[in-house]
Amino acid sequence: VTSVADLAQRVIASEPRATARAMRIVDDRTVGWSELLKTLWPHTGRAWILGVTGSPGAGKSTLCDGLIEAYRAGGSRVGVVAVDPTSPYSGGAILGDRVRMARHATDDGVFIRSLATRGQLGGLSRSARDVVRILDASGYDVVLVETVGVGQDELDVTRSAHTTLVVVAPGMGDEVQASKAGILECADVFAVNKADRPGADGAMRDLELMVALGDESRRALSKTHAGTEQRADSDGWTPPILKCIATRGEGMPELVAALRRHRDWSEGTERGRARRRTRLAEELRATLRDALIEAAVFALGDRVDAAASDVEQREVDPYTATDRLVEQFRGR
Amino acid sequence: VTSVADLAQRVIASEPRATARAMRIVDDRTVGWSELLKTLWPHTGRAWILGVTGSPGAGKSTLCDGLIEAYRAGGSRVGVVAVDPTSPYSGGAILGDRVRMARHATDDGVFIRSLATRGQLGGLSRSARDVVRILDASGYDVVLVETVGVGQDELDVTRSAHTTLVVVAPGMGDEVQASKAGILECADVFAVNKADRPGADGAMRDLELMVALGDESRRALSKTHAGTEQRADSDGWTPPILKCIATRGEGMPELVAALRRHRDWSEGTERGRARRRTRLAEELRATLRDALIEAAVFALGDRVDAAASDVEQREVDPYTATDRLVEQFRGR
Repeated sequence: VTSVADLAQRVIASEPRATARAMRIVDDRTVGWSELLKTLWPHTGRAWILGVTGSPGAGKSTLCDGLIEAYRAGGSRVGVVAVDPTSPYSGGAILGDRVRMARHATDDGVFIRSLATRGQLGGLSRSARDVVRILDASGYDVVLVETVGVGQDELDVTRSAHTTLVVVAPGMGDEVQASKAGILECADVFAVNKADRPGADGAMRDLELMVALGDESRRALSKTHAGTEQRADSDGWTPPILKCIATRGEGMPELVAALRRHRDWSEGTERGRARRRTRLAEELRATLRDALIEAAVFALGDRVDAAASDVEQREVDPYTATDRLVEQFRGR
Repeated sequence: VTSVADLAQRVIASEPRATARAMRIVDDRTVGWSELLKTLWPHTGRAWILGVTGSPGAGKSTLCDGLIEAYRAGGSRVGVVAVDPTSPYSGGAILGDRVRMARHATDDGVFIRSLATRGQLGGLSRSARDVVRILDASGYDVVLVETVGVGQDELDVTRSAHTTLVVVAPGMGDEVQASKAGILECADVFAVNKADRPGADGAMRDLELMVALGDESRRALSKTHAGTEQRADSDGWTPPILKCIATRGEGMPELVAALRRHRDWSEGTERGRARRRTRLAEELRATLRDALIEAAVFALGDRVDAAASDVEQREVDPYTATDRLVEQFRGR
């Protein structure tokens, strides 16, 4: 039996098996999970978290492979969190891992973890956040978080990255989808992949227009705030849009450079740091939400089922029943 | 100034403007919203809630139009809740409404409400639930809840219906998506729309296979429970799969009949009633979750931001900070 402190030490010492075990403990909420995360916390905050999102046909996985290679070539250790919540039962995510596993099997500098589950308490964004933190504590310099760009859960995962790369392919209508689903607001860099396909120039133009419109509304907003915002605006970030063909490696060095520029901006400017702070505050709110529900379910026990039964028999309305449960939880 | 009791009376008396106003009050959480829902509660529980889900290209809206016509022809008053969370900014959902509004503009027996928002506290499923309940209290016999079949939020909305219709179109891979996204588990009736297109027979076969597999695993499960489950199994429900061409009205009478059969099953059999109870219990849990968060945000006030700031400065880890906030909320 290993103690939490021992396991944490082995995670910090970058033992892959300890890292994998820590992830299982935290994901299953096994006794000690919270202690483990608390112990690892002082050793986190060093990794650069790079979110990569896009629809399944955008060639996201191949592009991620290219990024892993580039960062490995630069001497960084790379963690990968692959989130595919649409396939809780299918082997999709697992198969994807195997392909990559085969390529990086002998490479101790790469750690890949799939999150194919869904519907667990706190959702995907919490699971992803915990896994990223463990990789961070385990000394992975870059952590890639790969998501399929649909749904609120995935958006939450994407929002917790330091830099977010949105991958689109021509002719899929992705650029329009992106503007709808709220992805545009969190995109730091755009990659138009499969740029040899028809429609690549059209996709570039659409994205350029959307970025320009976004910039305009940001400027309009900052004008109304005046004063303090004025200075910050001078070091704002406009998402660059890059073409690439990931399967042939074309455009990859330029993409890597653009991502690097965003990283530098995010770490080096007041506005970049402000955004990091905002994201941390959002995370705390999400964590608080989860913790409240867990504590309430534990404290109320059978009383939730009893209340549900009362509502079913129409003895009480669900709103009054809910008010009572909240009061009971607060010990009033 | 109208009192909550007055407004509730006018909702119950089916005044469309009062119903619309009640929806706004509840959606915006204006003072009195909770009192309003409590007052309306005794007048709910009569409507049949029909969820209709499918991807954007499946022809779901045309099919819904056909259903509205059929129910109106049968003398029912019809409420429609159109959920399109992927377009918080676009006019998509609004435009869809206008088209339908034009058709049903002179019809007092149809009430259409769009929910195009996203990211509000408690999410879409709560908004949809509240709107459905107001329509129920306002005497709409059938409430159609139209969702795009992606993401957990939409799935939650779909799950709260009494009967769920899943619409697929040939050649879109929808049937495979359905099996992945958890839609299959909540489907009561399948419609293969645009059945004159190539691939319709293939889509039918795929769905039949999936339903058969689902039935098998349900049977295997009920065997392990034995005894009490044995009887219930005799009145189980196997989702029928129907072809239709909604634009031409072909197959619509058969679809309406199949939906009616599910409604009768759901209301008339022990197993159907058990599922209704389960869904009500799930709803209470969701409502409790929302209420807890609201109460905590209210009670903790600035302390959440203060804690976030401490975490940012790495004075405390987020897990300890969260524990403390939960304790503070509980007044310990």
